[in-house]
Amino acid sequence: VSPAGRRPGSPDTRAAIIAAAAAEFAAAGYNAASIRHIARRAGVDPSLVYHYFTDKPGLFIACLPLPADPRAVQDEARSGPPSGARVVERFLAQWEQDPSEPGQSFITMTQAVSSAPDVARALREFLTERVWSRGPRDGTSSASRATALVSSQLLGVAWARYVMRIEPLASASRAEVAAWVGPTIDGYMAAARQDR
Amino acid sequence: VSPAGRRPGSPDTRAAIIAAAAAEFAAAGYNAASIRHIARRAGVDPSLVYHYFTDKPGLFIACLPLPADPRAVQDEARSGPPSGARVVERFLAQWEQDPSEPGQSFITMTQAVSSAPDVARALREFLTERVWSRGPRDGTSSASRATALVSSQLLGVAWARYVMRIEPLASASRAEVAAWVGPTIDGYMAAARQDR
Repeated sequence: VSPAGRRPGSPDTRAAIIAAAAAEFAAAGYNAASIRHIARRAGVDPSLVYHYFTDKPGLFIACLPLPADPRAVQDEARSGPPSGARVVERFLAQWEQDPSEPGQSFITMTQAVSSAPDVARALREFLTERVWSRGPRDGTSSASRATALVSSQLLGVAWARYVMRIEPLASASRAEVAAWVGPTIDGYMAAARQDR
Repeated sequence: VSPAGRRPGSPDTRAAIIAAAAAEFAAAGYNAASIRHIARRAGVDPSLVYHYFTDKPGLFIACLPLPADPRAVQDEARSGPPSGARVVERFLAQWEQDPSEPGQSFITMTQAVSSAPDVARALREFLTERVWSRGPRDGTSSASRATALVSSQLLGVAWARYVMRIEPLASASRAEVAAWVGPTIDGYMAAARQDR
């Protein structure tokens, strides 16, 4: 079944699977979504889906609106004068890419993560591998702690803004939220630097 | 159908409905849980469930392990020398009441809140009415902002600790987490006091 003539190894194939998966996850929810259906939507063999993404959690993570290079967010935090405010603003922008439904992708992520422990695990592994482990210093306990605390505050702001819709966080501009929360991020990162 | 002989108006009736609802929500999940089943489990007429709790979101909120007087947490934050660390420690303790499954009640709450917008709304209303609106000063924008920011950091810590299980937040003691996050809570509350 390869109606679009897609071949293994083509970047188009990977993109087509991601598009099909995003549609399936949106329509069926994480738990009911099936790799077989996704493969059919993408016009590929199910084995190709496993080839590219290993399993359903891996495929789900690939569908999240994470930045193309997630390390860029962290680099910004560590280069030059650190700016927690910029980290906050970029973090929010990444969930507000679709102006018609800002934050909807975050809500979808929280649904999947809180109801499927394997998604939480896959997301944690993805972040550990691609975002949080950077270079030799990062194995230290103070760096891990700073990463965990920064993550907790960013996740919490997104939860309050998109899911709980707590004012004024729900309606404020990204720049306002960044000005309020940035100093917290700066504080967590400064504590990690002091311990080195 | 009143096998246990429960009568309207009895505190036992309310407690029996909450126990039945907690069992039903745990077994069926929020969306599939039905008021009719819950009433049958509790041995009462469904109309009594509506009488006490208005609707399914209201009943769900009543099942959350929120403190008997949720304002106590906030009072602690505002009386004497403010202690963000104590606020954090009490917030975590409230989700860790069941030592066999610490944090499970938070995970259940996040599932319901992220998949049912009416639960998010009901929880927000509950918090606004019972926790966040305290006395004349609290209508000010700086007080609302402090409340929202404190909430965001507490929610985020619980998310990182229970749902995402990010180390060291997942395995640290409550006192350690309180020491790390307390200064953030103190900072948000101090900013609100300065603006008054």
